[in-house]
Amino acid sequence: MREMAPQMYDRASTVFSPDGRLYQVEYAREAVKRGTTAVGLKVKTGVVLLVDKRVSSRLIEAASIEKIFQVDDHIGAATSGLVADARALIDRARVEAQINRVSYDEPIGVEVISKKICDHKQTFTQYGGTRPYGTSLLIAGVEDNKPRLFETDPSGALLEYKATAIGAGRVPVIEMFEAQYDENMDLNDAIFLGIEALYKAADGKFDPMTLEVGLIAVPFEKFRKLTADEVTRFADKIYEKYPKNDDKEDAEKSCKKKTDADEDSDI
Amino acid sequence: MREMAPQMYDRASTVFSPDGRLYQVEYAREAVKRGTTAVGLKVKTGVVLLVDKRVSSRLIEAASIEKIFQVDDHIGAATSGLVADARALIDRARVEAQINRVSYDEPIGVEVISKKICDHKQTFTQYGGTRPYGTSLLIAGVEDNKPRLFETDPSGALLEYKATAIGAGRVPVIEMFEAQYDENMDLNDAIFLGIEALYKAADGKFDPMTLEVGLIAVPFEKFRKLTADEVTRFADKIYEKYPKNDDKEDAEKSCKKKTDADEDSDI
Amino acid sequence: MREMAPQMYDRASTVFSPDGRLYQVEYAREAVKRGTTAVGLKVKTGVVLLVDKRVSSRLIEAASIEKIFQVDDHIGAATSGLVADARALIDRARVEAQINRVSYDEPIGVEVISKKICDHKQTFTQYGGTRPYGTSLLIAGVEDNKPRLFETDPSGALLEYKATAIGAGRVPVIEMFEAQYDENMDLNDAIFLGIEALYKAADGKFDPMTLEVGLIAVPFEKFRKLTADEVTRFADKIYEKYPKNDDKEDAEKSCKKKTDADEDSDI
Amino acid sequence: MREMAPQMYDRASTVFSPDGRLYQVEYAREAVKRGTTAVGLKVKTGVVLLVDKRVSSRLIEAASIEKIFQVDDHIGAATSGLVADARALIDRARVEAQINRVSYDEPIGVEVISKKICDHKQTFTQYGGTRPYGTSLLIAGVEDNKPRLFETDPSGALLEYKATAIGAGRVPVIEMFEAQYDENMDLNDAIFLGIEALYKAADGKFDPMTLEVGLIAVPFEKFRKLTADEVTRFADKIYEKYPKNDDKEDAEKSCKKKTDADEDSDI
Amino acid sequence: MREMAPQMYDRASTVFSPDGRLYQVEYAREAVKRGTTAVGLKVKTGVVLLVDKRVSSRLIEAASIEKIFQVDDHIGAATSGLVADARALIDRARVEAQINRVSYDEPIGVEVISKKICDHKQTFTQYGGTRPYGTSLLIAGVEDNKPRLFETDPSGALLEYKATAIGAGRVPVIEMFEAQYDENMDLNDAIFLGIEALYKAADGKFDPMTLEVGLIAVPFEKFRKLTADEVTRFADKIYEKYPKNDDKEDAEKSCKKKTDADEDSDI
Amino acid sequence: MREMAPQMYDRASTVFSPDGRLYQVEYAREAVKRGTTAVGLKVKTGVVLLVDKRVSSRLIEAASIEKIFQVDDHIGAATSGLVADARALIDRARVEAQINRVSYDEPIGVEVISKKICDHKQTFTQYGGTRPYGTSLLIAGVEDNKPRLFETDPSGALLEYKATAIGAGRVPVIEMFEAQYDENMDLNDAIFLGIEALYKAADGKFDPMTLEVGLIAVPFEKFRKLTADEVTRFADKIYEKYPKNDDKEDAEKSCKKKTDADEDSDI
Amino acid sequence: MREMAPQMYDRASTVFSPDGRLYQVEYAREAVKRGTTAVGLKVKTGVVLLVDKRVSSRLIEAASIEKIFQVDDHIGAATSGLVADARALIDRARVEAQINRVSYDEPIGVEVISKKICDHKQTFTQYGGTRPYGTSLLIAGVEDNKPRLFETDPSGALLEYKATAIGAGRVPVIEMFEAQYDENMDLNDAIFLGIEALYKAADGKFDPMTLEVGLIAVPFEKFRKLTADEVTRFADKIYEKYPKNDDKEDAEKSCKKKTDADEDSDI
Repeated sequence: MREMAPQMYDRASTVFSPDGRLYQVEYAREAVKRGTTAVGLKVKTGVVLLVDKRVSSRLIEAASIEKIFQVDDHIGAATSGLVADARALIDRARVEAQINRVSYDEPIGVEVISKKICDHKQTFTQYGGTRPYGTSLLIAGVEDNKPRLFETDPSGALLEYKATAIGAGRVPVIEMFEAQYDENMDLNDAIFLGIEALYKAADGKFDPMTLEVGLIAVPFEKFRKLTADEVTRFADKIYEKYPKNDDKEDAEKSCKKKTDADEDSDI
Repeated sequence: MREMAPQMYDRASTVFSPDGRLYQVEYAREAVKRGTTAVGLKVKTGVVLLVDKRVSSRLIEAASIEKIFQVDDHIGAATSGLVADARALIDRARVEAQINRVSYDEPIGVEVISKKICDHKQTFTQYGGTRPYGTSLLIAGVEDNKPRLFETDPSGALLEYKATAIGAGRVPVIEMFEAQYDENMDLNDAIFLGIEALYKAADGKFDPMTLEVGLIAVPFEKFRKLTADEVTRFADKIYEKYPKNDDKEDAEKSCKKKTDADEDSDI
Repeated sequence: MREMAPQMYDRASTVFSPDGRLYQVEYAREAVKRGTTAVGLKVKTGVVLLVDKRVSSRLIEAASIEKIFQVDDHIGAATSGLVADARALIDRARVEAQINRVSYDEPIGVEVISKKICDHKQTFTQYGGTRPYGTSLLIAGVEDNKPRLFETDPSGALLEYKATAIGAGRVPVIEMFEAQYDENMDLNDAIFLGIEALYKAADGKFDPMTLEVGLIAVPFEKFRKLTADEVTRFADKIYEKYPKNDDKEDAEKSCKKKTDADEDSDI
Repeated sequence: MREMAPQMYDRASTVFSPDGRLYQVEYAREAVKRGTTAVGLKVKTGVVLLVDKRVSSRLIEAASIEKIFQVDDHIGAATSGLVADARALIDRARVEAQINRVSYDEPIGVEVISKKICDHKQTFTQYGGTRPYGTSLLIAGVEDNKPRLFETDPSGALLEYKATAIGAGRVPVIEMFEAQYDENMDLNDAIFLGIEALYKAADGKFDPMTLEVGLIAVPFEKFRKLTADEVTRFADKIYEKYPKNDDKEDAEKSCKKKTDADEDSDI
Repeated sequence: MREMAPQMYDRASTVFSPDGRLYQVEYAREAVKRGTTAVGLKVKTGVVLLVDKRVSSRLIEAASIEKIFQVDDHIGAATSGLVADARALIDRARVEAQINRVSYDEPIGVEVISKKICDHKQTFTQYGGTRPYGTSLLIAGVEDNKPRLFETDPSGALLEYKATAIGAGRVPVIEMFEAQYDENMDLNDAIFLGIEALYKAADGKFDPMTLEVGLIAVPFEKFRKLTADEVTRFADKIYEKYPKNDDKEDAEKSCKKKTDADEDSDI
Repeated sequence: MREMAPQMYDRASTVFSPDGRLYQVEYAREAVKRGTTAVGLKVKTGVVLLVDKRVSSRLIEAASIEKIFQVDDHIGAATSGLVADARALIDRARVEAQINRVSYDEPIGVEVISKKICDHKQTFTQYGGTRPYGTSLLIAGVEDNKPRLFETDPSGALLEYKATAIGAGRVPVIEMFEAQYDENMDLNDAIFLGIEALYKAADGKFDPMTLEVGLIAVPFEKFRKLTADEVTRFADKIYEKYPKNDDKEDAEKSCKKKTDADEDSDI
Repeated sequence: MREMAPQMYDRASTVFSPDGRLYQVEYAREAVKRGTTAVGLKVKTGVVLLVDKRVSSRLIEAASIEKIFQVDDHIGAATSGLVADARALIDRARVEAQINRVSYDEPIGVEVISKKICDHKQTFTQYGGTRPYGTSLLIAGVEDNKPRLFETDPSGALLEYKATAIGAGRVPVIEMFEAQYDENMDLNDAIFLGIEALYKAADGKFDPMTLEVGLIAVPFEKFRKLTADEVTRFADKIYEKYPKNDDKEDAEKSCKKKTDADEDSDI
């Protein structure tokens, strides 16, 4: 009977299971776990977001797979999970940011906007007739000269991290960060550590051309994405550290195979 | 029990399955996979959309099976899946385009209109009381002198492609494009490649009279459909390349047989 | 399990089956297939609609079984399927036609009104709390001096035909049209072909008194129904071509038997 | 599985069965079939409605079992099926009639009011959250100097009849009418034929005191109910034609037995 | 399968069973059948209502178990079934009566108010989201110098009676009335007959102190309840007719036993 | 099948069971039966309410477990069942009392406010989407110089009592009252009888410190709660009558054990 | 059947089980029992709240795991259970506090705000379409120079405590308080007792850096959180009393292991 329990409590997000869990929320987290890996690192001089977009076909315009978004001048966000849900949440965040500027004539706080997103997500776990959002966000920004990095999940929970990851590669990336992260790193080292983690999480099946990197440095307070050239320079250093044997071919091969199946990964 | 799982999570689009999937969205994609094949190719000088309408009876006015639609002067769209859903989405797109002209006195961006369609689709996957749209769209246009080609699916996901296909013949067409597509082709070659792909996807059961072709060239920024004569000229080149043996009769025979069953294909 | 599938997906029109079908819409089509046969033929000089009303009892006022309706001066429609649904759709069409006259001071286009009916039908297949309409329509009219003939089905799909049929006799009628239809026929020949097709579809159980025929000729642009006398004259030619043996008695006998069961046919 | 089907499609009127039927509508018709027999006859000089009210106890005020209602000066209606539903429909009809007088300063047409009732009934078969009406109506009136007689059923279907019946005795009454009805009868003969049919349908268990008869004659255009005396005079002629043996006692005995069970018949 | 049928159609009042029944309405009637017996008798000079309140404990204030209510000066009602539903219906009736006085400056008709209550009840049997009322009413009054006595049941059906009963003792009371009722009785005899019927229906377990009696006489047109003294005088006559042996003790004993179980009877 | 029946009809309060019961209402009564025992006694000179609050831990502020509430100057109420539901009902009662004072400038009647609470409760048993209230109330007050004591249950039924009890100890308390209650007692004796009944119902496991007592005397018309000192004086008399052997230790022991389990009792 | 019962009544909070329980509310309490341990102690000079936040990774900013919130100047709250629900409730409490200041120009009472939170929670247990809140709160404040400490649970029940605990460690903490709590302690001793209880509840796996402590002293009437330094000083005293053997390593080890599983604990 214990075995049957999940089926009985997991088809409506507004229902608790006997052990106090909300299965629909947990299943929405599964949607995130199947998504692309997104990484965030906060160091004293800024925050960096990185995503390995895993473009599965040369026919896709890689630029159209956007996983890192500018929310406001001073805030960016990386997403993992259902892409249409992510877009809806980013749109909502941008509107909140604009409302703040119009209402108070000042930029919205990073924590404030993160909480607003989470409050919105929470209502989708308590009221009937909807499903939870199947998307987690990493929200990066600078506020009062301090870098901030928040993670929201489908339940509407909010945590601030020094460094974290969401999506399919979360576990290996977190393990690497637990061992090597140091908040006194400079931003360049943080970017390199993030790329290295993504490289390892992808078992070396890695295409620097589909890396998306966004950062915000404390003195400038402007969130911006790195150009392809800038990303390549970091990637080159990865290849120096991990000389490419036959990895590349492997990656290509796997890329081919994935053409169809992979479409699932971010839905 | 794993075997039973689909039945338990797939009857309401607002519910996640234990592995984080939305079965109703995936089933809506099946409706698209059963639709007519629609193809889009973007080259540097423009975008072309092609559909093999598969008219099953001489009693049907082929012109009334419209699969390629003018959305605005500079934007066209090809559809596959449920035809009534497609019409509803095209109507919505046209209204959005007109609203943009009225509100801002300028044409709507290709990416903007594609996102609006996708946002609309996403809400049908999250709220109860409706089903997702059973239609994918290829949206083609020119924006800032650049050709654009977007694909939207029932989840509300949006991707930009260099070349892509939706509907029953998607897999063979994509394989052919992966091998032969080159973004430096001129538009005529793109049209020919598209027709050739449809010809192959249909196993040579092919009637140029029911081909629908739309295109937009960069300098003109006007989306237009090819006339029957223009299409025929391209088709003739197909027949040159693939000399008709008894293919035609086969096509006719199959056409006959399909009279009834085929009505399913686009519903 | 495949066998069980229909039961699991067919009780709500807002739900897709695993193979991307909407069972409620398909079942609504069954309601149409059980209806009276309605036939439409478009020739260069006009369009004709014909219905075999199959009046099952001499106590019924045959005139009250109306299957062909005037929608506007220049538009008529024949229906098959649930009669109360048909009446609701015809009412809606008439209102749309009047709104057009009031708003734009001109008659509504045949294609425009057909699309409006279809859009209305589509919403009944996507939103919860209702069932699809169990009625198909043949819509005939003249627009810009051209005859038009549309068919709408319960899904909201719309096709233009040269000649078509809906209801119980669809398959034999379509077969006859595929063989004998010619768009250069004159209107009288078209009427005769339509009556002949109904005669054959009814296996000769045929009562000219319960035939309903409507037509619109290109130069006049007025949809009108034939009088009983006019219909009789065409029927007489049928009897000339197919000399009545004992068909009539058979028809009467079957008519008797059907008194009760037949009430199902159009509901 | 075929055997199981009804249970699966018949619990919500908004759902089609696989063979295109609406079971809830058909079950509502069963409620009508269990109701009291109501009869209508239209002859050239007028229309007559008759109901055998089957009063089961001498404690009931027979007059309070009303089955024939005045809807407007020139329109009457007889009902069979759920009595509370019937009252709601009659109220609605009366309001429609009054609205017509107020809005257009003229009496509502018999066909118009019949269609309005049917349209109202149809919506109860298509939208969720309600059941169909469990009542059929015979609507009688005079319009443009012509007698009219309509029958509406729970689906919202509308037919005009020369002579018809609804309720428990429908089949034997219709059979008798098919044989003996003649539209050239005078009104008195029509009343006698109707009473005779009710007498036969009741197997001679017949109480003229509980007969309700309404009529409208063409020249007067006033619907009125016969007085008890008038009814008795017709009944006497029945007894002349069918000399009472021991029928009466039988009727009384059965009347006694039915005290309880019969309450079902009109609910 | 026939055996299973009830379970399948009886859980929502808006659904018909295959034989055209509304099970929820029939179950609501069961709630009435389990209620206290209420009796109504109409004679030429007035109407009397009687209820045996069956007070199960000496700790209850018998006066608070009200089963006969004044609705307006000239109208009273007796109830059986769910007591909270009864109170809601009586409140509604009183408001309707007051509205009539305010709107038309005259007392509401007895039949009019009965119909309004029934119409209200009917809607609870047709629309989803509610259950039918589990209460029947006997409505007594004088109108145009004539006594009137109506019975409404949970379906919203309305009948006028000469004499009737609702609740647990309905069958034996009705049998007695069929035999002994005479509309020419005077009011006192009617009261005595009613009390005698309740006495018999209760198998002699009878406490005159918990009898509630209301009456309205034609010339006065005021509904009033008898005082305890008046009731006792009638009861004494019962005891004269049926000399008390050991009945009283029995009644007391049963009263004791019922303390708990009896709470079900009117709920 | 009889055995199965409850499960089939008890999950929605708006549905009748085949025997005319509303299971959800009966289950809500079970919630009351699991609540703390509340007692009411009405004597000629006033009304008294008593509750044994059963405080399970010394860490709880006993005063915060409020079971007797002042509703208005002249009205008090004791509750048993779900405590949050009780608070909601008391709040509603207080608002009704204030509205009455504002609207009519006089205190609300005890019966009036009791009926308003009951009407509110009834709607929660008839309309879908809610559950019944899981709380009974004893409402005490003085009106026109007369003491009144009402009991409301989850169905919305209303009874006036001389003496009654709700909650876990109802049966033994009622038995004691049936034997010993006398409406000519003075108020002090009534309080003593009430405490004695609670003492017995609790099997002597009894802490006078957690007794809550409220009373209203006829001449003063002010409802007030007894102070701890006043309660202690009554409790001392209990201990005189029932000399404490080892009861106290037992009570303490049981108190300990109950720490966890007891939380269920009032929820 | 008893065994089956829970599954049948626990999937909608608006439904009672046969024994009068609301399973959804009880399951929501399970969510609280899986939460972090929160402790409250009220002594004569003030109230203290303590939470062991159990930060599972050095990558998390411990400060972002907020379990103790300032609600108003004079009110604080500690939470356990679903974190997103907690945030929603705290937001609501803050708004209520501000409304009170604006409306009445004075701070809201501690009991008043606690009741408002509970009333809000109660509605989520009675109306359909939502789930109960999966969060309990300890609300601490000073009111009229008196310290107050309330606990609310998912049902909306409200109790005032001298000392209490919610969350995973509730049972051992309560046991320790039952033995050692004394309301005459000074605030420092209360803080020490609270920390000691958390230390023991965590089996010595304890990191003073993740302790959150809030307090309000009677004379100041300002709720404030202790600084990290202040907390450390108390923790040092713990280490003096319980000399660290290898506990620390154990804690670290367990901390590591928990990285993944622990995410469940507060969701």
